[in-house]
Amino acid sequence: MRFNSLDDIRAFCRDLPGGDAQAADAAALRQQNLTKPPGSLGRLEELAIWLARWQENATPRLDRITIAVFAGNHGIASRGVSAYPPEVTAQMVANFAAGGAAINQIATLAGAELRVVPLELDRPTRDFTVAAAMDTEDFLSAIDTGCHAVANDCDLLVVGEMGIANTTTAATLCAALLGGGASHWAGRGTGVDDDGLSRKRTAIEAALKVHERLLGDPLAVAAALGGRELAAISGAVLAARQRGVPVLLDGFVATAAVLPLARLAGGMLDHCRAGHVSAESGHRDLLRELHLDPLLDLNMRLGEASGAAVAILLLRAALACHLGMATFAEAGVSGAGD
Amino acid sequence: MRFNSLDDIRAFCRDLPGGDAQAADAAALRQQNLTKPPGSLGRLEELAIWLARWQENATPRLDRITIAVFAGNHGIASRGVSAYPPEVTAQMVANFAAGGAAINQIATLAGAELRVVPLELDRPTRDFTVAAAMDTEDFLSAIDTGCHAVANDCDLLVVGEMGIANTTTAATLCAALLGGGASHWAGRGTGVDDDGLSRKRTAIEAALKVHERLLGDPLAVAAALGGRELAAISGAVLAARQRGVPVLLDGFVATAAVLPLARLAGGMLDHCRAGHVSAESGHRDLLRELHLDPLLDLNMRLGEASGAAVAILLLRAALACHLGMATFAEAGVSGAGD
Repeated sequence: MRFNSLDDIRAFCRDLPGGDAQAADAAALRQQNLTKPPGSLGRLEELAIWLARWQENATPRLDRITIAVFAGNHGIASRGVSAYPPEVTAQMVANFAAGGAAINQIATLAGAELRVVPLELDRPTRDFTVAAAMDTEDFLSAIDTGCHAVANDCDLLVVGEMGIANTTTAATLCAALLGGGASHWAGRGTGVDDDGLSRKRTAIEAALKVHERLLGDPLAVAAALGGRELAAISGAVLAARQRGVPVLLDGFVATAAVLPLARLAGGMLDHCRAGHVSAESGHRDLLRELHLDPLLDLNMRLGEASGAAVAILLLRAALACHLGMATFAEAGVSGAGD
Repeated sequence: MRFNSLDDIRAFCRDLPGGDAQAADAAALRQQNLTKPPGSLGRLEELAIWLARWQENATPRLDRITIAVFAGNHGIASRGVSAYPPEVTAQMVANFAAGGAAINQIATLAGAELRVVPLELDRPTRDFTVAAAMDTEDFLSAIDTGCHAVANDCDLLVVGEMGIANTTTAATLCAALLGGGASHWAGRGTGVDDDGLSRKRTAIEAALKVHERLLGDPLAVAAALGGRELAAISGAVLAARQRGVPVLLDGFVATAAVLPLARLAGGMLDHCRAGHVSAESGHRDLLRELHLDPLLDLNMRLGEASGAAVAILLLRAALACHLGMATFAEAGVSGAGD
């Protein structure tokens, strides 16, 4: 899968694969016959049926899970919008490689392969308060990198990111595509102080003004006001849709990364679930806008796919019940009203 | 640990062990030094610190987890308050033994030992609309059974239940000890229809009237309006407190089971966390009354410890991060404002 132009992406989004409704129906029927009151496993039932639809298999599996963490650096970091210096992006990539980060521990626990993909960390995007963060070629290249992170035999893709200053990028995308203003979408990210938060809002407002003429074009916004790791996430989500791979989205940045796609086509995110709602202030509203109901609400705000990776465990619980439980007939248990 | 009288229980609750504050402080300090913005793992940090306090160990472990599912039958079932016939309690106990229930699959996934404890299923408690469900001896015997389900070397206890008609029992305990009336606390349980729900409310109102003179005495209420599996849960939670074992509570019935204890002593449930909030209508309000913030909200309403067992996975994630992550110094990552 390769997108050679923004129009290629638009064309794909006009004719999205819809999953296998028959597999979903068969999974739903199986859920009705398992030894429990119908519906009593709640979202675990819905998740099993959702996996069935997108894997096109009534008995889905989670043998190969890829957690893709894309990393990028941002020109906007020079505006003092983060509590951490930009070197931390590369330092954390090294920490991922050494196995010392939260995502390493959670990935191992969840039985998932961690794939860390740094995107030109020594060449930050441009400061989008003065110019487009990326030109179209740069943007498409990052999308392409994202597409390549999704193997054909992948059963589940989990997307996350690392990038100092990228909650500013995410908030800017939200403000550009959803309105509501800088104050509504800017949060404290990794823990910026009041002055930093004020600088963040100022930067977002400046960016909206500079790029005002683009605001009606979601992909142009994604290039001009986004970041490479966000573009890569959107590429991975597009490739997952093409390849029948269900997706768990991580927090505010990972969700903002797919907002431009969601503005292109209704149902664009049907193969995605929100792994969690983070403590970053804009995330809950963004999820609501996208009609995504998060699986977890644990007050996490670390990024690096950590919240969504925890949610893998819920999918494993859903699948264990779906595949392993006895039916009423097998177990000799009376049904309701018997 | 053996309680020979209700006064023995009251005496224990007056002088509760408080856990190890030093272990908790040491765990909190470790969390501050791990390679993440302080607090960014949210509840996963809080859970690691909570485990440390109650295990009295700054590096807690989850090597031995017991899921105790207590099963009981209820005289009140004869009032037509459930969608299922009372035989299902024993049938589901057989299903647990055969490995076909949801809890079997989740326990295996979570690496926990499942202990199913039926309590005199062929001798239901009395219909509490006409007499006390249990006399004191019967109640203390069930408490004792619960105490024995907690091994000394247990790292975590998860409590749940199985018992046709026991959401009526749970709702009655809530109405008796918290007020609010039958309509507020009665829900649809495993899926009772409108007529059944109406019978459920009538039964609760009748029970409150018959036992009116007891309502100021939480343990007397637990005996007269409770059930054996609920009493066993409260016994297990008491034993866990004595033995330094943290506890995950399952849904509405398991939480209602410890409500009488919570009315005896503030802080009684400090060693407990609510594994989830269930779809049973009274559970959210009951958790609020008990100041318990549930870890999961997955619209589950199955009982049999299933929701709390899923929450074990969150504790494993919390512990994996706590024990496995590198510190800033170890990883050479810059801190905030460096």
